[in-house]
Amino acid sequence: MSFSRFDDDDAGGIDEAMCCFSCREPYAPGDAGTCKECYEEASETEEELKREIDDLKSKVAFLRLSSSLHPFSPPCFSDVVLVAADGASDQTDLAPPVPVHAHKAVLANRSPVFRAMFENQMEESLSGTIKISDVSHDVLCAFVNYLYTAEACPDDQMAYDLLVMAEKYQVKHLKAYCEKFIISKLNWDNSLLSYAFAHQHNAKHLLDAALSLIADNMDKLTKREEYMELVEKDPRLVVEIYEAYLAKQVNTAAHKDPLQNNRSHRDYFIAAAD
Amino acid sequence: MSFSRFDDDDAGGIDEAMCCFSCREPYAPGDAGTCKECYEEASETEEELKREIDDLKSKVAFLRLSSSLHPFSPPCFSDVVLVAADGASDQTDLAPPVPVHAHKAVLANRSPVFRAMFENQMEESLSGTIKISDVSHDVLCAFVNYLYTAEACPDDQMAYDLLVMAEKYQVKHLKAYCEKFIISKLNWDNSLLSYAFAHQHNAKHLLDAALSLIADNMDKLTKREEYMELVEKDPRLVVEIYEAYLAKQVNTAAHKDPLQNNRSHRDYFIAAAD
Repeated sequence: MSFSRFDDDDAGGIDEAMCCFSCREPYAPGDAGTCKECYEEASETEEELKREIDDLKSKVAFLRLSSSLHPFSPPCFSDVVLVAADGASDQTDLAPPVPVHAHKAVLANRSPVFRAMFENQMEESLSGTIKISDVSHDVLCAFVNYLYTAEACPDDQMAYDLLVMAEKYQVKHLKAYCEKFIISKLNWDNSLLSYAFAHQHNAKHLLDAALSLIADNMDKLTKREEYMELVEKDPRLVVEIYEAYLAKQVNTAAHKDPLQNNRSHRDYFIAAAD
Repeated sequence: MSFSRFDDDDAGGIDEAMCCFSCREPYAPGDAGTCKECYEEASETEEELKREIDDLKSKVAFLRLSSSLHPFSPPCFSDVVLVAADGASDQTDLAPPVPVHAHKAVLANRSPVFRAMFENQMEESLSGTIKISDVSHDVLCAFVNYLYTAEACPDDQMAYDLLVMAEKYQVKHLKAYCEKFIISKLNWDNSLLSYAFAHQHNAKHLLDAALSLIADNMDKLTKREEYMELVEKDPRLVVEIYEAYLAKQVNTAAHKDPLQNNRSHRDYFIAAAD
């Protein structure tokens, strides 16, 4: 494919095939992206961003603490022990409580709740053993591991359990991580449960994502078993779903038909419910 | 500026100004960078990289430990104390030793030397006080702060001092950081001293950078005072400078004149010295 410039100042009539610097394919003026200068600048920017990522990754690796959770590694200068309420791994329910060795400095640094516990010389702090109720040993291990490494490999249930722990001990970074993970797995089947869960544990991002998914599927909502249960158990949450749906309807209608902005909210609600 | 396509398959004669999607300026076919598709892909990639950077930055912030080095903050569950040989800040040379509170778990995690010291129950470990010789209190503080936060704000001299500490306690991440910092400040005036320093402390990257700078300025080398001192003190290092220079000459000549590859190294050396 060839192009000719109609600019009198330059040597006219030169056939020039424009090839993309990136994919090397020829393209027409209508498919033009960037000029050469901006392409080169963008390439440099990309290289810089990649270098920054490498730097940050090496910093994360440096700052990670080995959490001494490996069963064969000795607890390294540990000054506190955590024990889950069930006291054992899910696989060995009858075994005696398995302690998770940790360090007050690390726990206090990651969680204001642990910090207060240790600084106020509460009973748990003095005894050196903290019992964590309503949590399995596996979840406790995953929780402590995150505090040391900022890493987790949760399955679906573990993500919910870790979010509860993060909320309880005010570990914002872990809570955000869990919300992101659960949102990535959100679907129509788990949206109502996730919505109620998000409400219970103040997970704002998850709440918004679940609510948006529910609002997109309102025609199927009332047929769901979880819906009936929620109406029974916590009708205020159901009201909020309808309010979010209504707001969305009003918004969409206003975008589609700006002249009809004077219609009342009630009109939209009735129209949407038809 | 307008262009017309000479492609018969399309509607011919349409004037189309090609504008860069990035700088919005018109450009000619000869200045073409990317096609639209690749531009959009690159923009997405950049957005993704920026998101990854944000994620990593928040991870670094989460993993940082407050180092309890602030004079007004109480040492938080510290189990070990470090004392610099000079025992005081540079500003208060007559003051008694100022202890730097730390945690064995953190020091052992960052430095295999500290780990061995604590695990082998050496005297320093048992007493709970580790004397660090040949270092000022300020450098010790900066060193410990880096172990907790992966952050430093060194001036020129501090970077050299921290590199020595990093080498002594085998903290690779800090050593790499210091090398990078010193390389960024490298110039003809400090190149010979940096070269000798890099040799002494096995700083490979700094060594290469200093050597390359010296080899680019060989005509001025022998006139420098530091050169005379180095010949006196450690002539092997001077030999290595000449060897590096020679290798560079051979390389450059081979690139310039591939036919003359048969000339011996000695010929080049003589020619270069002329």
